[in-house]
Amino acid sequence: MSGFTQILLSLAFKAAFCWAKSTNSDPDDLDDLLPTPGSPDDDSSPVGPGDDVSPVTEEIFSSWALFIMLFLLISALWSTYFLAQRRIKAVHETVLSIFYGMVVGLIIRLSPGHYIQDAVTFNSSYFFNILLPPIILNSGYELNQVNFFNNIVSILTFAIPGTFISAVVLGAILYLWTALGLEKVDISFVDALSVGATLSATDPVTILSIFNAYKVDPKLYTIIFGESLLNDAISIVMFETCQKFHGKPATFSSVFEGIGLFLMNFTVSLLIGVMIGVLVALLLKHTLIRRYPRIESCLVLMIAYESYFFSNGCHMSGIVSLLFCGITLKHYAYYNMSRRTQITIKYIFQLLAQLSENFIFIYLGLSLFTEVELVYKPMLIIVTAISICVARWCAVFPLSNFVNWLYRVKAQRSMGVYGNDAAIPDEIPYQYQMMTFWAGLRGAVGVALAMGLQGDFKFTLLATVLVVVVLTVIIFGGTTAGMLEVLGIQMGCIDENDDSDDEFDIEMPKPINIASNSVPTYSDEISQNQAMTTSLPPNSGGQLLSPDAVQPSSRLSLERQHIRETLSTIFSADSQWFTNFDEQVLKPVFLDNVTDGSQSRKSDSSTPNFLGSRR
Amino acid sequence: MSGFTQILLSLAFKAAFCWAKSTNSDPDDLDDLLPTPGSPDDDSSPVGPGDDVSPVTEEIFSSWALFIMLFLLISALWSTYFLAQRRIKAVHETVLSIFYGMVVGLIIRLSPGHYIQDAVTFNSSYFFNILLPPIILNSGYELNQVNFFNNIVSILTFAIPGTFISAVVLGAILYLWTALGLEKVDISFVDALSVGATLSATDPVTILSIFNAYKVDPKLYTIIFGESLLNDAISIVMFETCQKFHGKPATFSSVFEGIGLFLMNFTVSLLIGVMIGVLVALLLKHTLIRRYPRIESCLVLMIAYESYFFSNGCHMSGIVSLLFCGITLKHYAYYNMSRRTQITIKYIFQLLAQLSENFIFIYLGLSLFTEVELVYKPMLIIVTAISICVARWCAVFPLSNFVNWLYRVKAQRSMGVYGNDAAIPDEIPYQYQMMTFWAGLRGAVGVALAMGLQGDFKFTLLATVLVVVVLTVIIFGGTTAGMLEVLGIQMGCIDENDDSDDEFDIEMPKPINIASNSVPTYSDEISQNQAMTTSLPPNSGGQLLSPDAVQPSSRLSLERQHIRETLSTIFSADSQWFTNFDEQVLKPVFLDNVTDGSQSRKSDSSTPNFLGSRR
Repeated sequence: MSGFTQILLSLAFKAAFCWAKSTNSDPDDLDDLLPTPGSPDDDSSPVGPGDDVSPVTEEIFSSWALFIMLFLLISALWSTYFLAQRRIKAVHETVLSIFYGMVVGLIIRLSPGHYIQDAVTFNSSYFFNILLPPIILNSGYELNQVNFFNNIVSILTFAIPGTFISAVVLGAILYLWTALGLEKVDISFVDALSVGATLSATDPVTILSIFNAYKVDPKLYTIIFGESLLNDAISIVMFETCQKFHGKPATFSSVFEGIGLFLMNFTVSLLIGVMIGVLVALLLKHTLIRRYPRIESCLVLMIAYESYFFSNGCHMSGIVSLLFCGITLKHYAYYNMSRRTQITIKYIFQLLAQLSENFIFIYLGLSLFTEVELVYKPMLIIVTAISICVARWCAVFPLSNFVNWLYRVKAQRSMGVYGNDAAIPDEIPYQYQMMTFWAGLRGAVGVALAMGLQGDFKFTLLATVLVVVVLTVIIFGGTTAGMLEVLGIQMGCIDENDDSDDEFDIEMPKPINIASNSVPTYSDEISQNQAMTTSLPPNSGGQLLSPDAVQPSSRLSLERQHIRETLSTIFSADSQWFTNFDEQVLKPVFLDNVTDGSQSRKSDSSTPNFLGSRR
Repeated sequence: MSGFTQILLSLAFKAAFCWAKSTNSDPDDLDDLLPTPGSPDDDSSPVGPGDDVSPVTEEIFSSWALFIMLFLLISALWSTYFLAQRRIKAVHETVLSIFYGMVVGLIIRLSPGHYIQDAVTFNSSYFFNILLPPIILNSGYELNQVNFFNNIVSILTFAIPGTFISAVVLGAILYLWTALGLEKVDISFVDALSVGATLSATDPVTILSIFNAYKVDPKLYTIIFGESLLNDAISIVMFETCQKFHGKPATFSSVFEGIGLFLMNFTVSLLIGVMIGVLVALLLKHTLIRRYPRIESCLVLMIAYESYFFSNGCHMSGIVSLLFCGITLKHYAYYNMSRRTQITIKYIFQLLAQLSENFIFIYLGLSLFTEVELVYKPMLIIVTAISICVARWCAVFPLSNFVNWLYRVKAQRSMGVYGNDAAIPDEIPYQYQMMTFWAGLRGAVGVALAMGLQGDFKFTLLATVLVVVVLTVIIFGGTTAGMLEVLGIQMGCIDENDDSDDEFDIEMPKPINIASNSVPTYSDEISQNQAMTTSLPPNSGGQLLSPDAVQPSSRLSLERQHIRETLSTIFSADSQWFTNFDEQVLKPVFLDNVTDGSQSRKSDSSTPNFLGSRR
């Protein structure tokens, strides 16, 4: 909601201002539509008719602009429904959104007058302040916490060194290409690295929607989605660091400076988000605000947004803060809310995220034609498009092998005698590696960052980034569903995390209920995996847990299954200390009625969380 | 959500632009933050450091602005909770919101630099496009349709001739006062009438919140609320008509032109709203979009907004369209939605309306100090403040007597023999008249309209309107609760309309369940009134149905009660034809499963409205 109206209105306003400009050649009047008051004795009105845009006219103008933009959004939503209804997998909704944006952008470009064209350019601040927060907040809130923290090693490996490798490889290729001088583009290495950083932020939006639609294996989903969330933050920090060195010679120490800056940034942002989430939990626990669910919902939403703006205001990463604020809200504050607020918050986060997602892609499509200053260099675009594949290849495959090696070493140490190398399955099998590579499409974060590029070739580089982003969304986004099938990756998995509030999704086909219906805690992952194994409907045809467990009846697979469970126990033991600490110290402090909190949460969340005596 | 972020961001942006202006003396660069690309061969960067506001800096600046504004909003929400929790009736939340706005406005005014001050001025387009729609939409959606259409005569009488009388009286007084020339303010009669029109729009927001909080007698609530909703539309049309005659001599025929314009405007707007509502109902009926509740919720919200922008774009009244779109959505489309969308839509409308309401008053308080161009004329403000009371008095009391007379005549005709004048109770008793007078506080619609004033004394008049609006909100809004008690008006009434979706409001104390729990249709009002009479908890202490039915045991009251019921039957017969038409023709066309639609709606709405065969 917030996202698109913000932009719509801004567009409408810019357009209205441009229109005002057209009737009034004096450029100083742009932000001063109200005429200055004349002296009281002066009878002849100093305000000419062209000088004064009456709010009525202004309002009608902006009404039409808003109408058209909402219409675009409705078309995109309608297409999403149509695609889902007809089970069309070849075309994805994001591709259609971009396409709609491009069509309207082309019409605007070809139509006479430049006012609307000026109005619909991409504004990075709107993107960062309005469109992005709902998506990140919803991601954090809906995140499967068990899966996320169980795969944190893989996620962090891909997110931190992965993004760094990708940016450096891409930057190096670009620098070398431009150094050839074929297209008279001459950029410094720092600028090339900046572009590398912008194009290393993989997009959480498209992946989220595709993987959600097909209910892809949660582990793969978590790794790719977690990486794409965190590497946005890393890209932003890398980009900002590069921009600080713009025009200055880069030294070797600046690499370490950048790494230190990043780690500090990440930690502080995480703490801000967690602290605000805990603050909300305590606020809800120690007040009776749950008696007024309307105010409660507004407050939770507002305070969550505050974490983003506060963090950004402190030069930290708002994305990381908001993500962890969402996670903390779901982990603690959720259980202190009134039932109505639980439902309201969930649905509002989802609705805002849905609208923002659709709008971002319409907006990207629009800017392709309406950004008049862009300088397109075809060769550079092709080279960049190829380079991002190379860069992602360099990041994904070596790091996957590193993670596999890490887990294998650890497993061998833990299992001691009966650990044989062949029996231990890969943590990230080849299919997953390939899919992670394929899912590396770039999104609007890159474009928004690229708006901040400096120097003579700003518009050349911006055009390159924009086109490459749109290309990756169309090519990789359009083929992700097909790729999932080609690689034989398990689809149709149950997202347990989504169960708790969806008693109203009666139209959605539901699988047999999972035995342990509680919202998962870190410790009960194994039992859930087992429950999933047994509760998947026989006609789902999906492969269980990983693609190499194709025939559950075969002895080898059973053995592997056993090893896998043993491994899960080993690795979940790593996070056991936190689970214990959480259950015994944190939850009694943050939650309202912790006695039956973690055990019977499901029943708990459907009855309100308050002690009768506190009425 | 949409409302405040819109404004927040705009403020942030204006501020950022002003900051950019401060580092760059060239005013032409205001909307051109991106430097023009230099020639590729030119090595010296044409972009100076002060010329270029990097998106990073811009983002941090807007982050802080947004942070502060959200903080204000959180404070206002928190105060609302505190007041409700402590049962403090003396101070109302709207007064506190204005107060917070004033404090921050004063701080901004006194602090050095004019950038933020420039940034937080009241913008009428933001108000009309972003803050107002959620409130109107939610009003229409939550409107008690039975009460509204049963009191349509009173509502329309107050809304149409009432607003007209009020505007003319106020305009005449203002014209005469300024003609005296005491403060050297010289305005034409048309301008005075314009100000009269802006100050005749009573505010739905505060009344809605106060009357909802105290659960005032539904009839009085409906009349005052219905009037305040519709007279916004009438004020806007009157104001626009007056502005067309600005600078021209007004003729007698322009009165009729204005009335004709208004009637056409009202009818077309109503039709647009109803048609879009019906369109949504048909869309939901004939597609399977309910299977995708996320898309469904977004679509319903977007299409409802479209009615507002479309209507405004066609020079019609968006408020009227949106109001009737909301009513139609609730009357038809609601029953075709999936259960999840029913809940989502209701909660989102409420949340958006709540945030907009709070923000409007903060914004009003802010502009009192931050609108630098305002010219305050103390005498004019006092005269205007007194005049609006006089004008409202002239509108409310004669028209109430007219309505009472109308109903008495009709009752006598219908009842024939046993109609005696004394026994027939007033349609609008004196207490209700007094309360209607008292509830005539003015709101942000007036201020937003006054932004469009033209002429030399624009800022004098704008300042007058702004101060008078804030005064009425503080004085009348602050004393409404007390006045309800002084007049002995029934409070603690059950709002049946609110029941259907509130199974999650477990913390809210609930009265004994009403016998006929269904969402009311036009025809079953009497049975509901009876149900209310019998089901009100004995300790509520409220007076039933009207203040003159104090002792239900006395014979006179029983007789009156009987007459009242007879009257209800007579007057509800007027709308019987529509009820029949609705049940027999419209509902089968618009609703999905109409067979058990109108009778068992309650059970119907808790199970999804789809035919099993359509899965």
